[in-house]
Amino acid sequence: MVKKVGVLIIGGGPAGLVSAITAKRYYPDKDVVVMKNVVNGCIPCGIPYMFWSLKNPDDNKLGLDALKKNNIEVIIDEAVKMDRSAKKITAKSGEEYEYEKLVLAPGSMPIKPSIAGIEKEGIYPVYKDMNYLKAIITKLKKAKNVLILGGGFIGVEFADEISKINDINVYLAEVLPRLLANSFDDEFSLLVEERLKSGGVTLLTSTKVVEFLGDDKIKGVRFDNGKELRIDSVILGIGSVPNTTLATEAGLDLGRGKGIWVDEYMRTADPDIFAVGDCAGKRDFYTRRDTPVMLASTATAEARIAGANLYRLKVVRENKGTIAIYSTYVDGLVLGSAGLTETSAKKEGFEIVSGNTESIDKHPGSLPGANKVRVKLIFSRQSGILMGGQVVGGISAGEIINIIGMAIQQRVSVTELETLQMATHPYLTSAPTMYPVVLAAQNASDKM
Amino acid sequence: MVKKVGVLIIGGGPAGLVSAITAKRYYPDKDVVVMKNVVNGCIPCGIPYMFWSLKNPDDNKLGLDALKKNNIEVIIDEAVKMDRSAKKITAKSGEEYEYEKLVLAPGSMPIKPSIAGIEKEGIYPVYKDMNYLKAIITKLKKAKNVLILGGGFIGVEFADEISKINDINVYLAEVLPRLLANSFDDEFSLLVEERLKSGGVTLLTSTKVVEFLGDDKIKGVRFDNGKELRIDSVILGIGSVPNTTLATEAGLDLGRGKGIWVDEYMRTADPDIFAVGDCAGKRDFYTRRDTPVMLASTATAEARIAGANLYRLKVVRENKGTIAIYSTYVDGLVLGSAGLTETSAKKEGFEIVSGNTESIDKHPGSLPGANKVRVKLIFSRQSGILMGGQVVGGISAGEIINIIGMAIQQRVSVTELETLQMATHPYLTSAPTMYPVVLAAQNASDKM
Repeated sequence: MVKKVGVLIIGGGPAGLVSAITAKRYYPDKDVVVMKNVVNGCIPCGIPYMFWSLKNPDDNKLGLDALKKNNIEVIIDEAVKMDRSAKKITAKSGEEYEYEKLVLAPGSMPIKPSIAGIEKEGIYPVYKDMNYLKAIITKLKKAKNVLILGGGFIGVEFADEISKINDINVYLAEVLPRLLANSFDDEFSLLVEERLKSGGVTLLTSTKVVEFLGDDKIKGVRFDNGKELRIDSVILGIGSVPNTTLATEAGLDLGRGKGIWVDEYMRTADPDIFAVGDCAGKRDFYTRRDTPVMLASTATAEARIAGANLYRLKVVRENKGTIAIYSTYVDGLVLGSAGLTETSAKKEGFEIVSGNTESIDKHPGSLPGANKVRVKLIFSRQSGILMGGQVVGGISAGEIINIIGMAIQQRVSVTELETLQMATHPYLTSAPTMYPVVLAAQNASDKM
Repeated sequence: MVKKVGVLIIGGGPAGLVSAITAKRYYPDKDVVVMKNVVNGCIPCGIPYMFWSLKNPDDNKLGLDALKKNNIEVIIDEAVKMDRSAKKITAKSGEEYEYEKLVLAPGSMPIKPSIAGIEKEGIYPVYKDMNYLKAIITKLKKAKNVLILGGGFIGVEFADEISKINDINVYLAEVLPRLLANSFDDEFSLLVEERLKSGGVTLLTSTKVVEFLGDDKIKGVRFDNGKELRIDSVILGIGSVPNTTLATEAGLDLGRGKGIWVDEYMRTADPDIFAVGDCAGKRDFYTRRDTPVMLASTATAEARIAGANLYRLKVVRENKGTIAIYSTYVDGLVLGSAGLTETSAKKEGFEIVSGNTESIDKHPGSLPGANKVRVKLIFSRQSGILMGGQVVGGISAGEIINIIGMAIQQRVSVTELETLQMATHPYLTSAPTMYPVVLAAQNASDKM
């Protein structure tokens, strides 16, 4: 049987969810259907916190109430074939769907590195599937020696969480000499490393795993320096690749990166097919090069554009390109990064000036709960335009990075930041004389 | 004896301090002197918190270390006369100072309303003087029935703080029907009122004091409705007026408001005399009308402009005008306001659309320390440009209002906000699907 659908959305993560809701907002007369292959999905960024912070992992379920409330149908099935000329999707169950507009939001798959022994029991990629994750959590709570592979955000957050479970030794292995090296300059990475070490995590930076040891079940790892370690569980946190099989098999182009090529309105080469989120290619804000940013927040921004423009172009998409904008939490230490770091800007070939400042996030600093806050801003030397920023501090640093992100997206200049009008309050922010975003801009301006 | 000075700054509050440091940054060869009439000043916004939150009120001292470190001389004296043709200031001590450039930053004085009995002992205006305030704190801790006059930020923060001292009954009287009515729409004011009431504060809105009762010392108050109340201490929190005497006596113009007229570079009518902070006139961001915003954060933004432009115009001041941007903290409830409210925008004659949303400031919401967060955004209906915003939530709301403030100053449109790229993290922000600034913009867009 062939079912006719107005808007068919493949994928039930944040990208699919927001595409569906936005589609219904703009085109209320169209029926919108979400097809997802996992019964219970997860809030992606909440996955590490299912291991310890959340006493009940089910709290991290990606709720579908918003879909039901908006009269959006959810089908549990998997799209296996796309026929573009017939505008038809065939699902694993054999059902067929004819769409007017199709949104591809199947996300990404965790990378399984080609290391000897990778298929042994006890080595866990992070799939966004509630039942799968709950099974791992149960197993991991009985583990003794856990290795986290990869020192990016996922690896760091997993290491922090799992180190809080009693009687587990946590090792974090990263090929590069620093953790979070793609998003932070060394002085910030150092703070994360110190915090993890003081929480009992053993850091193995500049270290490569060459073999997983043991029979069926993992018993240890061997590193490139010849050393071996007794390990009973491994979590793979070395990144993901876009899910593009369905698209490429139907002849849709990929961009110069690995994602599906999309235009400014998230349309693929076929104007009736959109792609959003991890599966879609992204162009860098600064260089227009393809960039591998995979973030739920980016995915939702794209989904809002796609959903609005399905039948008629409605939301003017000013092509600002994608910025990498992240925040993380390591045992109470909050870090944020937006845009380019000093290292990545120089590598890219930009002539830059950086400005630094350190302050306290309340004033006076003796108020309860005050934290040091440190801001670094990166400006283009000639134009004085903000290109990136990093912050470390307490809880409020999680929104300070969004002030910086807004400024980057608006191409704000160092002069505008120096004379910014901001709200300050003893319990909430640094003193007005010491507001870190302004003072870091001043520091950069002094060097120009 | 006449002392010759490069840059003379009158006033040692945040405006004077930042003017001095900025002057030294841009003109390191000039000697910079700060004249202040109070030996120990206070961080202005920290004053309410000297009464309870800070166990030692001295922690709220406005430190002068930054001045000393920058080789800036501090003189404790009061400027009493200005001779503009001789470019000379005469101090109370009789000393005379010849300046090349003068910066007026004498601040403002608390308003003493002309109510019968206002001079009685036990009625305290809030002067920014450490010794004066410490004496009041000592007296107030023995009080039984305290009346706070004025339901703006100062009044609300004092009421919250003083209600935490054991065995004091706190009354808060406001002429208008709502608290914080100039900065928040009713639905936000209501939350503050509820929070104060649950903390034991008795609210007397739509109520005017007509007489302070008692002999030398205050024993009670009479209201316009005829009722009387036993009161032994009163704190005046009904606003301030700019200190302009020195300037007007020397023939400098005031603006159409009550502050000293200044150009885009904070120069008064006399190009060698600058005025910054509470004493200086401000032009509204939206209407160019004179506006009575008196904020330390605004003062420091102005001081950074003045300090840079003293001898040569260096920092291009794009005349964006002054926005009111505030945050406050009431017994754990955090509120922020930037730009126009719905009420003030309509009163001003703008055709506006508002967008509202409610979310949780962590995700999932079961993470420890999660708070509801509510955002309201006000857009110009025709242009879709952001004109104002209000937020209520937990600690991070103190920086969310600065994201909104940045967006207002950059004249960001509703479409840009709908497609904003932001960092989200379980412990730090709402979910990307629920990021309140984006969702409030969407809600407004739905109505356009």
